[in-house]
Amino acid sequence: MRRVAVAGVGLTGVGEHWERSLADLYVEAAQRAFDDAGTDEIDALYVSNMGSAVLQRQLHLGAMMADALGKRGIASFSVEAASAGGGVAFHEGVRAVASGLCDCVLVGGVEKMSDALPEEVAMTISMAEDQEYVAYTGVTNYGLCALLQRLYMERFGARADEVAMLAVRGHEHAEGCSHAQYPFKISVDRVLASPMEADPVHSLECSGIGDGAAAVLLKPAEEAGEGVEVASTAVASDVFHLTERPNLLTFDAVRLAADKAYKAAGVCTDDVDVLEVHDDTTITGVISIEDLGFVEKGKGAAFVAEGNTARGGRLPTNTFGGLKARGNPLGATGLYQIAEVALQLGWRAGKCQVPEAKVGMAQSLGGLGSTCAVAILRRT
Amino acid sequence: MRRVAVAGVGLTGVGEHWERSLADLYVEAAQRAFDDAGTDEIDALYVSNMGSAVLQRQLHLGAMMADALGKRGIASFSVEAASAGGGVAFHEGVRAVASGLCDCVLVGGVEKMSDALPEEVAMTISMAEDQEYVAYTGVTNYGLCALLQRLYMERFGARADEVAMLAVRGHEHAEGCSHAQYPFKISVDRVLASPMEADPVHSLECSGIGDGAAAVLLKPAEEAGEGVEVASTAVASDVFHLTERPNLLTFDAVRLAADKAYKAAGVCTDDVDVLEVHDDTTITGVISIEDLGFVEKGKGAAFVAEGNTARGGRLPTNTFGGLKARGNPLGATGLYQIAEVALQLGWRAGKCQVPEAKVGMAQSLGGLGSTCAVAILRRT
Repeated sequence: MRRVAVAGVGLTGVGEHWERSLADLYVEAAQRAFDDAGTDEIDALYVSNMGSAVLQRQLHLGAMMADALGKRGIASFSVEAASAGGGVAFHEGVRAVASGLCDCVLVGGVEKMSDALPEEVAMTISMAEDQEYVAYTGVTNYGLCALLQRLYMERFGARADEVAMLAVRGHEHAEGCSHAQYPFKISVDRVLASPMEADPVHSLECSGIGDGAAAVLLKPAEEAGEGVEVASTAVASDVFHLTERPNLLTFDAVRLAADKAYKAAGVCTDDVDVLEVHDDTTITGVISIEDLGFVEKGKGAAFVAEGNTARGGRLPTNTFGGLKARGNPLGATGLYQIAEVALQLGWRAGKCQVPEAKVGMAQSLGGLGSTCAVAILRRT
Repeated sequence: MRRVAVAGVGLTGVGEHWERSLADLYVEAAQRAFDDAGTDEIDALYVSNMGSAVLQRQLHLGAMMADALGKRGIASFSVEAASAGGGVAFHEGVRAVASGLCDCVLVGGVEKMSDALPEEVAMTISMAEDQEYVAYTGVTNYGLCALLQRLYMERFGARADEVAMLAVRGHEHAEGCSHAQYPFKISVDRVLASPMEADPVHSLECSGIGDGAAAVLLKPAEEAGEGVEVASTAVASDVFHLTERPNLLTFDAVRLAADKAYKAAGVCTDDVDVLEVHDDTTITGVISIEDLGFVEKGKGAAFVAEGNTARGGRLPTNTFGGLKARGNPLGATGLYQIAEVALQLGWRAGKCQVPEAKVGMAQSLGGLGSTCAVAILRRT
């Protein structure tokens, strides 16, 4: 296998892009990645998107984006894994370059939620769970997260203000991030005073609705020279129905993917200088930090509350705001995370920079943990 | 790169499966592939599907199928490329095994159209074209095919009855096929007397609405022993909008993908003993046969009419009925084609067998040729 470099990254701001199409956003992120890498000579592209069939009535995004980029003829692939799609597409793109079957691959994610009806957005998000078994009951994603958080707080004696601190930290970090949807601080009191999405999950603990696109350009490391390389990627699945899992508070897919990724990269949790974790609600972020192995099960909320995930803490986490504050354009989210880790390791993160970051990890979830994608990057 | 074997195939019948879910169909095809291969030890699975977000309000099929198969934990990937998705997923699955990154991979496609509203099915199919530019005008896929056929007949002096013969041959072949949706003969007179979908495309030249799932199990050839192996796969794209192509009657994506596949396999058109071609309408099949290199541009319809694509002809084509008679469950279609080629090369095609077939090709289109996936298989 060849070593693979992240030779360029490109991001659009996350927000409401009423005047831009899916293709406009994808092309903008791709062009920025091309400019960043100093090349646009790609032989394949991947597109991650979750909801375009419902939100834009559009499928076949691979061929669409190849054409929109003026890259007619290249192989194009459209990948979907709910909000883990970006990480899953990255995994496939890395594999294509590592195996030598492709020389230069663009992996981009795009999602556009602002111009759809709220019920279409809600329906799209619910499609990550089984329609015949889970969505059918009327429970939303936030409803499921509320079940988890209630159980978590009861079983481990965690407090709501501890869990909420993940959102507070995210907003703190987003202040310096030019592509963040919500680049401002919020206090824990404000989070706890915000309306309940589903008790005990407050609305300021949930990622919002946003549009955006993120792209990375992958090349063989030997060609790209020094910079940021992919140490490993992994994808794993878990029981599709939350209610059928033996242990609700452990995301097995996270454990499996992380174990594989650590082994393949030859690193351990102590080596990770910067983490992007999937906080579509605070509780999924807290559980993920535990299942990635950074802290014992049940201690994640306290770990966050004690400041460990702050920029100057032991494990700087969601250093551009995370899903909560940078924003969560579903199919693009995993690629925002990976691009942000690459910026950190390239020491190009501006006000968000974690000093001397050398190893970083991005983790994303599809559904309530039924898919997990993990990527570990390394500064070379 | 490792050589990759098609160690097992599994098919459901194509037809109306009112009582079965998407997962039921996928699992049935997968179990048959497991039984056929004598193993169910997979480390990853791919799912190809086109329309589930609209037709079943379901996304995240990768994790869903991993769970439905009892394969919790494995990496799972959902791929979409309109009706080329099956071929594209196969390409990705082959790459995973060839590179050594996976040891045993299931690639399955599934589609369920019967239990959706007709307008939802029509909308799903139209999503393969640009919504803002093509679908917006109200032209359907069959309308676009009619433009092509009209131009083809005028430019090359081809007759409607010549083009129609591809459907007649497909039905002839499907007579012996237990998984075909329409396993009976039709005459060319009946085709030409059937109602126009869009003049000059008759309804009996168009593939119908059907449900089905197809799966193949991929293993390293050295482990699988003698049998059927993947000689090459390739994916290419073309201008997304038909109207912007310099030459409407040439599918560049087919030429590009075929060239790559021939070169990588080290075979030429004369070596191909059996072909599965994408005849969602007769004209797309005819143009594809030309652009795959089997006959000069403009001579495809005559080539078909002269009997070359019959089972005993020079190029036995759509030997189980093709999209027209075996059926066309969009995201599954490419994998039906590949499984059928594997059955032919394994000399296990029953009444559909082409004697002594040693090299076979499957070609599928997404949209009106904006994606093409080609696979060449070989008997070892």
